[in-house]
Amino acid sequence: MRTSQYLLSTLKETPANAEVISHQLMLRAGLVRNLASGLYTWLPTGLRVLKKVENIVREEMQRAGVNEILMPMVQPADLWQESGRWDDYGPELLRLNDRHKRPFVLGPTHEEVITKLIANELSSYKQLPLSLFQIQTKFRDEIRPRFGVMRGREFLMKDAYSFHIEPSCLEKTYQVMFDAYCRIFDRLGLNYRPVLADTGSIGGDASHEFHVLADSGEDDIAFSDVSDFAANVEKAEALAPTVARAEPSQALTEISTPNVKTIDDVAEFLNVDVKQTVKTLLVCGIENEQGETPVVALVLRGDHQLNEVKVEHLSQIAAPLTFATDEQIFAAVNCNAGSIGPVGVSMTVIVDRSAAQLSDFVCGANKNDVHYTGVNWDRDCSAIEIADLRNVVEGDPSPCGQGNIVIKRGIEVGHIFRLGTKYAEAMKCSVLNEAGKNQTLTMGCYGIGVSRIVAAAIEQNHDQYGIKWPAAIAPFQVAIVPMNMAKSARVKETAEGLYEKLNNGIEVLFDDRKERPGVMFADHELMGTPLLLVIGERNLDENQVEVKNRITGEKSLLAIDDVMSLFS
Amino acid sequence: MRTSQYLLSTLKETPANAEVISHQLMLRAGLVRNLASGLYTWLPTGLRVLKKVENIVREEMQRAGVNEILMPMVQPADLWQESGRWDDYGPELLRLNDRHKRPFVLGPTHEEVITKLIANELSSYKQLPLSLFQIQTKFRDEIRPRFGVMRGREFLMKDAYSFHIEPSCLEKTYQVMFDAYCRIFDRLGLNYRPVLADTGSIGGDASHEFHVLADSGEDDIAFSDVSDFAANVEKAEALAPTVARAEPSQALTEISTPNVKTIDDVAEFLNVDVKQTVKTLLVCGIENEQGETPVVALVLRGDHQLNEVKVEHLSQIAAPLTFATDEQIFAAVNCNAGSIGPVGVSMTVIVDRSAAQLSDFVCGANKNDVHYTGVNWDRDCSAIEIADLRNVVEGDPSPCGQGNIVIKRGIEVGHIFRLGTKYAEAMKCSVLNEAGKNQTLTMGCYGIGVSRIVAAAIEQNHDQYGIKWPAAIAPFQVAIVPMNMAKSARVKETAEGLYEKLNNGIEVLFDDRKERPGVMFADHELMGTPLLLVIGERNLDENQVEVKNRITGEKSLLAIDDVMSLFS
Repeated sequence: MRTSQYLLSTLKETPANAEVISHQLMLRAGLVRNLASGLYTWLPTGLRVLKKVENIVREEMQRAGVNEILMPMVQPADLWQESGRWDDYGPELLRLNDRHKRPFVLGPTHEEVITKLIANELSSYKQLPLSLFQIQTKFRDEIRPRFGVMRGREFLMKDAYSFHIEPSCLEKTYQVMFDAYCRIFDRLGLNYRPVLADTGSIGGDASHEFHVLADSGEDDIAFSDVSDFAANVEKAEALAPTVARAEPSQALTEISTPNVKTIDDVAEFLNVDVKQTVKTLLVCGIENEQGETPVVALVLRGDHQLNEVKVEHLSQIAAPLTFATDEQIFAAVNCNAGSIGPVGVSMTVIVDRSAAQLSDFVCGANKNDVHYTGVNWDRDCSAIEIADLRNVVEGDPSPCGQGNIVIKRGIEVGHIFRLGTKYAEAMKCSVLNEAGKNQTLTMGCYGIGVSRIVAAAIEQNHDQYGIKWPAAIAPFQVAIVPMNMAKSARVKETAEGLYEKLNNGIEVLFDDRKERPGVMFADHELMGTPLLLVIGERNLDENQVEVKNRITGEKSLLAIDDVMSLFS
Repeated sequence: MRTSQYLLSTLKETPANAEVISHQLMLRAGLVRNLASGLYTWLPTGLRVLKKVENIVREEMQRAGVNEILMPMVQPADLWQESGRWDDYGPELLRLNDRHKRPFVLGPTHEEVITKLIANELSSYKQLPLSLFQIQTKFRDEIRPRFGVMRGREFLMKDAYSFHIEPSCLEKTYQVMFDAYCRIFDRLGLNYRPVLADTGSIGGDASHEFHVLADSGEDDIAFSDVSDFAANVEKAEALAPTVARAEPSQALTEISTPNVKTIDDVAEFLNVDVKQTVKTLLVCGIENEQGETPVVALVLRGDHQLNEVKVEHLSQIAAPLTFATDEQIFAAVNCNAGSIGPVGVSMTVIVDRSAAQLSDFVCGANKNDVHYTGVNWDRDCSAIEIADLRNVVEGDPSPCGQGNIVIKRGIEVGHIFRLGTKYAEAMKCSVLNEAGKNQTLTMGCYGIGVSRIVAAAIEQNHDQYGIKWPAAIAPFQVAIVPMNMAKSARVKETAEGLYEKLNNGIEVLFDDRKERPGVMFADHELMGTPLLLVIGERNLDENQVEVKNRITGEKSLLAIDDVMSLFS
């Protein structure tokens, strides 16, 4: 491709409102342009990368024996009503009416469509297992689209689904997919990790996320410092302390704490370690038979953070997790949120494992501006339940039993689920089994955020000058950069000759603009072209070109006749 | 691919509601499944074909130097308001609101988005000409989706756009695109013709459609029987008769024609050739300064059909064409629609060229159940205007000046337009020209219906057993069909060996189902696999397989060791 026929569109300035480096570089290098909130046009350079990611994903799905199909983006609402997600999905599901006022949705995912398809097409266990995928445009009406294509509204996704007569067969396909995902991210040249994850709104009994590791990631990943254990922090279990709780040594004492707002303020005011304090949060429990929603107290050590995903899985708590309002708090404990404590309350009290190990601790006294010191479980506060309520922190023992937790940040680019029968049951997806009886199918589902991978690759591979693409997804393999071609017939002739030679199987960008060398170099560094062939008068005396490597920064001279050896 | 891992899904019965053969065969051969009106899921076999079409289109666009991009399906409404099409497009444009109640559309085409993009990105004539394309999912909310993917609502389209500083440059790119389109349809292996066409709602000053010729086509194409002239009937000019009008020989006579409804009934009742009658239609003219819409009379020979597209281009007629209501007719001529005639009316009368050549003709007398005979222009009815109002018919002289018209049916699969400045003006798309002044760009746009091509290819290539794919778009190159593999270890071993050998660069479907040979043969004929390798005990004694050619029907024996020669 010649730049004179190409929509290069690089920008010198960092655009306002682009918060993360991948978004900044995707705009500056001319990969994407914003059309509206969360909607992006992929320009030629960006689309070349996107297509390379797409092709690697497709090839590995095909290698894994997965059938490619293509389902519509616009889906009839009745399928979502049948699965129950019409009500459950919330406003991220964009709903619309056609000209005949029939309701539809823009598909954020395709479990309903594929399960209904398979319910109609398959009749016998002999046709199983069957795996299908598509690479298709999805729409999720994010409330706050941000970070460019990282969290856009319209995006390209690979979604795959597998169907099985029984869970043991799903187990095998799940492993096949897990391995295919590893091959995909290996081939993409990314530093990634598969991590245990929560199944979230998709449902099912187990899942793994695939994360590209990058400091700018939105997710915290807990690793063991000695084993290969890795889990999303929302999923990583905080083990119960193995040391027994100390006996009480202090008396329960009420202390005035006027104008002391936060748990850190309390610790400082009382001159105790924040690890000797607990904080108490009131949340909504499960509605009872009288239609009343009780509040439930959650107690954590002062230095720990609530893990909302773990809490939502508790049988006593309503999902999605809802915090009690000030009115509900006042009605339950007659004080403000900052002074709640577990002593003497009549509601269900669930205590985090680490908080449950404390003795002689500090907590709110359920009176405004008053706290207790010397609090002890059993003696001062009994009938509590103990559970894992908190995020793990660095130094916690790893749940795998080996080593301690370290935490890194990751960008979720893939997610695989053992779905089980959730959708197959709702959509009546069954076949005749070996015994001739109807049997509901077991399903798996497997997603990859194709457009998000482009942004994640940049977050992990850039420097102050621009993008440093992994070779497999660079938009071009090489650029030809002639110096002052307008003034030198020899430079022009050499550049044209090299272009003709390379533009035959090699993805080459020929920079035939009338620009200063500095402008050209800056653009190619920004775009992350792995190799530059710099053609200048001086080196032509020796029949040589300069080769610049974007990744290593190395420059070297190469005989013009040997240029093809760079690509063999 | 092994059929045991593949979603084959052929149907024995022709599904109800599938009117055209391509729709029937696409369902029966397991290419697509209906999700909702005008919405289809592409199953593995169908998607393989669709991807092959897509790849040929992409390769030829790239060869023509067109930049590939990808624009969003969801587009903000304000762009459509800016171009004026928000009001003009009608209910085929699906409108929706996001969660923040901001209005959007599902893109039926992308002139607005690309013109705005280029308006933002380009600043100088030096960056021109520039051509861009995308292969992307479109949505048009057809009032009556039908014929399967031929007229669906969600479909895959290649849309390209070119930008130029002046029309002469557009002319060159238009020709490059015209040639690229010919290469695409040549490579697809289809019998097609480029034809002159009307620009319709897209706008612009000239366009060509590309039609796949098939009896089931929705469009009539007018060809010259001696030259390479071809035009959509809606565009083909009906030349004025070269023979001078005969002098009047009959007197104007009023005749009672009770209960004579149609023009054919009139001719029969009066015992005259229908070619000696005229029919008069009243339509809405242009609103005048008083806000009144006058009716205009259109007069055609009794055997000719009105060409609405030609009429809409007349300056005296409002577009879209609207026929006068019974009330308007009665107010204007005081009779029913069946008795209107041009004699003595006070409105504008526009007479088709052929009707204008008649003398001593028959027409309605503007009294119910009364006609005139012996009518003559000038003598009985003056102050008429003459224009080309009708569809050409077979035998008309070709507008190219050579030969006569023959009419064939076609399926429109591509359409290229010289758009001019319509969108560039509306969206303020300009650059600085060589003189340093702002200049509005000139545009071309170029569409191909990728999913429709699959259906059109089937309409043109099938027999009573199923599809006969052109080689370039067959879902598989070859199928291996073993006879009674379960009972013969030798057949199984040979089939597996051949599969291993072929499944390395050749697109091969290995039919490893436990089905009777007849079922397997029927499925492969239905799916249109070009070559079958039939493996049976008898031929294995001679180390041979039978080769069946789907297109020619030929069967031959081939040494197993020579199978690869089929693909070299």
